[in-house]
Amino acid sequence: MRYPEVPIHTLLRFIEEDAPFGDITSEFILDKQSCLADIIAKEDAILAGLSEISRLFRHYGVETSSGYEDGNSIASGTVVLSLTGDAHAILLVERTALNLMGRMSGIASQTRKIQELVSSINPCCRIAATRKTAPGLRLLDKKAAMIGGADPHRFSLSDAILIKDTHRVLIPLGEAIKRAKTAGIYHLIEVEAESSEEAAEAAQAGADMILLDNMSPEQISSTLTLLKTHGLRDQVMIELSGGITPDNITWYAALKVDRISLGMLTHTVRNADFSLEIRPGSNVL
Amino acid sequence: MRYPEVPIHTLLRFIEEDAPFGDITSEFILDKQSCLADIIAKEDAILAGLSEISRLFRHYGVETSSGYEDGNSIASGTVVLSLTGDAHAILLVERTALNLMGRMSGIASQTRKIQELVSSINPCCRIAATRKTAPGLRLLDKKAAMIGGADPHRFSLSDAILIKDTHRVLIPLGEAIKRAKTAGIYHLIEVEAESSEEAAEAAQAGADMILLDNMSPEQISSTLTLLKTHGLRDQVMIELSGGITPDNITWYAALKVDRISLGMLTHTVRNADFSLEIRPGSNVL
Amino acid sequence: MRYPEVPIHTLLRFIEEDAPFGDITSEFILDKQSCLADIIAKEDAILAGLSEISRLFRHYGVETSSGYEDGNSIASGTVVLSLTGDAHAILLVERTALNLMGRMSGIASQTRKIQELVSSINPCCRIAATRKTAPGLRLLDKKAAMIGGADPHRFSLSDAILIKDTHRVLIPLGEAIKRAKTAGIYHLIEVEAESSEEAAEAAQAGADMILLDNMSPEQISSTLTLLKTHGLRDQVMIELSGGITPDNITWYAALKVDRISLGMLTHTVRNADFSLEIRPGSNVL
Amino acid sequence: MRYPEVPIHTLLRFIEEDAPFGDITSEFILDKQSCLADIIAKEDAILAGLSEISRLFRHYGVETSSGYEDGNSIASGTVVLSLTGDAHAILLVERTALNLMGRMSGIASQTRKIQELVSSINPCCRIAATRKTAPGLRLLDKKAAMIGGADPHRFSLSDAILIKDTHRVLIPLGEAIKRAKTAGIYHLIEVEAESSEEAAEAAQAGADMILLDNMSPEQISSTLTLLKTHGLRDQVMIELSGGITPDNITWYAALKVDRISLGMLTHTVRNADFSLEIRPGSNVL
Amino acid sequence: MRYPEVPIHTLLRFIEEDAPFGDITSEFILDKQSCLADIIAKEDAILAGLSEISRLFRHYGVETSSGYEDGNSIASGTVVLSLTGDAHAILLVERTALNLMGRMSGIASQTRKIQELVSSINPCCRIAATRKTAPGLRLLDKKAAMIGGADPHRFSLSDAILIKDTHRVLIPLGEAIKRAKTAGIYHLIEVEAESSEEAAEAAQAGADMILLDNMSPEQISSTLTLLKTHGLRDQVMIELSGGITPDNITWYAALKVDRISLGMLTHTVRNADFSLEIRPGSNVL
Amino acid sequence: MRYPEVPIHTLLRFIEEDAPFGDITSEFILDKQSCLADIIAKEDAILAGLSEISRLFRHYGVETSSGYEDGNSIASGTVVLSLTGDAHAILLVERTALNLMGRMSGIASQTRKIQELVSSINPCCRIAATRKTAPGLRLLDKKAAMIGGADPHRFSLSDAILIKDTHRVLIPLGEAIKRAKTAGIYHLIEVEAESSEEAAEAAQAGADMILLDNMSPEQISSTLTLLKTHGLRDQVMIELSGGITPDNITWYAALKVDRISLGMLTHTVRNADFSLEIRPGSNVL
Repeated sequence: MRYPEVPIHTLLRFIEEDAPFGDITSEFILDKQSCLADIIAKEDAILAGLSEISRLFRHYGVETSSGYEDGNSIASGTVVLSLTGDAHAILLVERTALNLMGRMSGIASQTRKIQELVSSINPCCRIAATRKTAPGLRLLDKKAAMIGGADPHRFSLSDAILIKDTHRVLIPLGEAIKRAKTAGIYHLIEVEAESSEEAAEAAQAGADMILLDNMSPEQISSTLTLLKTHGLRDQVMIELSGGITPDNITWYAALKVDRISLGMLTHTVRNADFSLEIRPGSNVL
Repeated sequence: MRYPEVPIHTLLRFIEEDAPFGDITSEFILDKQSCLADIIAKEDAILAGLSEISRLFRHYGVETSSGYEDGNSIASGTVVLSLTGDAHAILLVERTALNLMGRMSGIASQTRKIQELVSSINPCCRIAATRKTAPGLRLLDKKAAMIGGADPHRFSLSDAILIKDTHRVLIPLGEAIKRAKTAGIYHLIEVEAESSEEAAEAAQAGADMILLDNMSPEQISSTLTLLKTHGLRDQVMIELSGGITPDNITWYAALKVDRISLGMLTHTVRNADFSLEIRPGSNVL
Repeated sequence: MRYPEVPIHTLLRFIEEDAPFGDITSEFILDKQSCLADIIAKEDAILAGLSEISRLFRHYGVETSSGYEDGNSIASGTVVLSLTGDAHAILLVERTALNLMGRMSGIASQTRKIQELVSSINPCCRIAATRKTAPGLRLLDKKAAMIGGADPHRFSLSDAILIKDTHRVLIPLGEAIKRAKTAGIYHLIEVEAESSEEAAEAAQAGADMILLDNMSPEQISSTLTLLKTHGLRDQVMIELSGGITPDNITWYAALKVDRISLGMLTHTVRNADFSLEIRPGSNVL
Repeated sequence: MRYPEVPIHTLLRFIEEDAPFGDITSEFILDKQSCLADIIAKEDAILAGLSEISRLFRHYGVETSSGYEDGNSIASGTVVLSLTGDAHAILLVERTALNLMGRMSGIASQTRKIQELVSSINPCCRIAATRKTAPGLRLLDKKAAMIGGADPHRFSLSDAILIKDTHRVLIPLGEAIKRAKTAGIYHLIEVEAESSEEAAEAAQAGADMILLDNMSPEQISSTLTLLKTHGLRDQVMIELSGGITPDNITWYAALKVDRISLGMLTHTVRNADFSLEIRPGSNVL
Repeated sequence: MRYPEVPIHTLLRFIEEDAPFGDITSEFILDKQSCLADIIAKEDAILAGLSEISRLFRHYGVETSSGYEDGNSIASGTVVLSLTGDAHAILLVERTALNLMGRMSGIASQTRKIQELVSSINPCCRIAATRKTAPGLRLLDKKAAMIGGADPHRFSLSDAILIKDTHRVLIPLGEAIKRAKTAGIYHLIEVEAESSEEAAEAAQAGADMILLDNMSPEQISSTLTLLKTHGLRDQVMIELSGGITPDNITWYAALKVDRISLGMLTHTVRNADFSLEIRPGSNVL
Repeated sequence: MRYPEVPIHTLLRFIEEDAPFGDITSEFILDKQSCLADIIAKEDAILAGLSEISRLFRHYGVETSSGYEDGNSIASGTVVLSLTGDAHAILLVERTALNLMGRMSGIASQTRKIQELVSSINPCCRIAATRKTAPGLRLLDKKAAMIGGADPHRFSLSDAILIKDTHRVLIPLGEAIKRAKTAGIYHLIEVEAESSEEAAEAAQAGADMILLDNMSPEQISSTLTLLKTHGLRDQVMIELSGGITPDNITWYAALKVDRISLGMLTHTVRNADFSLEIRPGSNVL
């Protein structure tokens, strides 16, 4: 599997945000000088964002070399990227690079850990990211979750149909599914159900996937049984969501479901810790 | 105190990210219909981002009303914003609005809690945000931290001089400060010090502020004493950073320092939980 | 059914393209004067783009009124939009508006005609647009095709999986489908097949949809039979494409297939003809 | 003659439109692999857009080679561009490249054919493109028409003065021309005339060019005679437009006029057909 | 005569440039408060940019009123724009507005003065602006010059043909003009001539306009005579440029030429002085 | 000292402004041909913008070589940049490059001259630029002033606090300073004072810097004395502004002040004169 690349102009906007009028510290105090620098992991992590920051440093004329790639599991203390080039360029990009790789690796690491937990219980069950990403960072957050092993789920409102409770206040479910199937068949139809009956109704009406939202493991079990009884279980995929955390996810993973989606993968993020160090003496290059 | 406003075109980019080709669910299944909806807090929080999402909904022709404003402490269950308008517009903006207000309120809530803890110990000590923000979200993250009560610290590489260990590998401190003072005097000069001696050297050389990085409370105390001994304490402000968490911050806050900066305010974020609900029956408007 | 709205800033870019340094004709020769103007259909058409151009005129302070909406079938000679406002604003927007509504209505009209032909033969069969749109106009072209009655098909490379001959040179089909299903289940998997055997293989391997590309009606028939024989017909949707034109489409529509996609809907476009007329005497307002 | 280059960032926007969250098919199913691919003409055409798509592929690290250049007449079956590089990059750019070159070559081919027809009758008469281009594609459409041999006409409202019937409702012609000449003399003044009298009036008043709009060949002839009689023919250039199609253009070309403009060159476009093929076995590179 | 409007998004970029992270002074020290403010001319000037800054203030919710419009000659001390609204909004926009109107009015005032000087000597002679504008400010600078009374000249490389000495090193003049006339006839052809012979050659070859560059008044006179002798004077317009300043322009204006272009109109600019004052007591609104 | 780099996409926008539809002169008349060209100073100047234009030419594939760098003092007649490449590319960039380097060098030259004058009288006193820059050109104008030797002063409203008369109408000074110090301590606080008493009050209240605005040398002297008397002089830096010109600046420089800011550095600019010349015969490359 491979991952989408964040366009360079998006990355450059991050630099402009961090230096609208330049990096006055470097400009005021440094001479034009080359140096060597390393980006070092300060904790164990799944690498994500390395591809982006490497392109970013290279855009500013800094040479990069690395023995790793996105998705690798690296140990605290690892030099994940070595840099050679103009000290100003390296320091200009430093914080943006660390913020970017820190966030993406934080998401990837957390995702990998939860996916492994789930896989150990149910090898067929995958966790999935949601649209609860940081505003403007959808592509980065989804890519990081994919690197961590999650299903990206829909990327936006434009790529799958998800009929939620908010829609059902406005239109009956059967009519909604009928309309959706008429309008377009290239996009999967998922229906959020809050009871076994709703789940069965949705499956009957032709949904491709049922999202069991905020149900207890018991409710989910009986919903699966009900679907099986009606011969509907094989016609739909089942996603769980709502109130599921790393602490209770094993209860859910044990059930015969296809996906468990967790908003927390991208809305509760602790950046992985990386730092940049200039190699002493390297400025005499 | 008031806060900068995030420009509308930035907010609109968030919508385009979430709906590059529209919201196919609503478009495929709903008629043109008006409705009433509420945004409701699902947990106690400090509100932040309300100003932004209100402008965003209004841009799409949705009327908004609220009894609250950014910075208010609201209880779980509070309706923080009421909406009247086209159902498609409300559902188009929903997730972007919740992601935005969720992140900003998450930052503000966490910040407020830590600041209150610090204030209870040392009313003169303020916490400060850092540049460890999500890429592209500097303004939002800083604003949220300010709403929570933190000092925003420098916004970017362009607005204050911070001489760090990475610079000191490349140039001696005294020379660095001398150059900085010559180049420009409208930007504060802060120096990162890793020992009492470095702190004293920086103060002597004319730094406006000393960042004591990764020091233990004891080291900090003796550094303060050293500065006082040399008559330098009143000439500089003191910022602490490095390894400080809500768990150990009270040890640091008890010291006579001016600022304690925490990267975690913006790099370890748990979104505050809000949800949008369509009022049943409201579509017969 | 409703349609996505093209963002105003996209529309404004069209104006800037047509007047990077203003409309020198109006500026050089006209006084500041108000007038009334009408946009009139010069041929029968299905209206599309009216929503966009109305917003565009209003952005420049011109009042608009219309008795029609996108999707309406209007006769040659119909006044589809009446304008009141500053003559400069009306003339500045004129050509952009006519180009936009002309293209979109051209697409919608052609689409509607073909869909009606197909529906008259097979009410369950829908035509579909492709990604063969004008560069930069994906949203406009797809919207116009939807207004005309077509299934929009996938909007971009990000919203459905389509395994084509180009991919199959690089990876065996079975492995490709297996990987796709593992990577993500929120996006439909379609496989392009050039023979009955390939179609059966794809259905067997779990594709959601088969694209029968460049097959004769006879080959299609025997493919459908083969799928039925293997009990696979109901598990997949069938799309036809390749060499299908309004002239021969009835042969294909008679077959029991779900979608017929035509690149020509958006890559062979004749703009519908509209013109703008200033009402004589209206400048004495 | 050479042609303007479409800026790379415009081309990159087309890619982002087609892959806002990446190319999920390639990402989900392919390994990192190189390959060879060819872009092949599926019909005879005048090449246009080759320069743009070559730069676009190269931006993504794909090597390009071609024995042709924009403006060449190529036969069906010709390999117009050969590609070597990462399979993902090639497939990412494929559709955008084909849409771009397809539209531009479609315009260039149609233009060339009509211009040759006109030239065979009247070597001094040139056809001209209009501002009836696809929104946002003015530069591409005009460039394609130029490659086909047409005069580009004015590019926008900012580069020549064209006094049309819409203006004449608002201001008398004589006054309009007088004002235009006073305001600026670096931009040509053309006047749309709907009768011989109007044409003569415009020429008398100092117009540089007369646009005879929607006149029959007879009316045009008598207008030319009238102008000659008054000694005005040599002082103005004559452009024809309105209702002229490839079917009737020879009637018009036979007249002694300078330009015949046809909106259809860019508003009635059939893309030229190109396809991309991966060379079998090339992925073992 | 009217003038092009600078798009609002261009104006908003100026605000973002001046406040990438807000206006910290106002935010830190002011309450939410309304006030009245005036923009006052501190010197006599020709107003330009008033339309732009009025729209800009209104974008931020500030009410504007003015008794003046662009092009008016106003005396030092005049209140040219009165503002009512939120103090933060007024102070946020203040400097951008003053810089914008200051530059544009500076250009307009200088232009008006020189044009009046020229007109007093030769009512048929107009001064013209050049492409020597500030980078990114072409539209603003040209608009200001037009408001001051200058011919805008060509706006960009796309709207008229000017064959200069740099071109003539690369291609003979006759061939250049022939090619230009073949390629397109909707754009005026001007030729830069450095001697009487070159001027005659250009006129003979069919140029529409001759730019006499860096000639003394005597050389210009003899060139005009030579053209007249050959019966070419009435077939071309004559522009002068090079080394012409307000000090010596009367010598040139006395000659029978059409345009005198001065780079200094936009490359040697002294901003007109305006200031913004808050009305005392107005914050108790 | 080094300077911030203007991002390439900003520079490319300048090209698009000057050639929205290409450079029709070159396109219409030239063949594809290489040439050599030089950019030559037509007057003595301090070079600024050379880094920007070099990157810009290289973006278009033109090779550059220069024996100079920004900040160098060069004599009239110096070849500051030599170019080798496609003639179209060189001519496309020519005017943008000259406008850019002309403005920046004009600012740098004027700044250097004034700074040297000031330094000759008071080596500790530096001149400073203001926010009175051309709209959209803040970074370029500030960089040019820095190259000329000025302190850049604050870059925007986001990087230092300056309490002006406009604020003081709205809030008492003491309260303003107190609030500012509470809100954030990473940004310098400057107070504009119009009398000795105000200056003393500001210093007493804790301002870091006092801006003595529009005071006569005598008033300034007595203000300095007053501050000294109260033991406040060493606690604040002093900036002068208002009505100071190259003609009278020596009077001010003789006073013991830290900075003298002059709006004229960037709002009264005469471009330095550079021209581009194609080397004769170079097109036979």
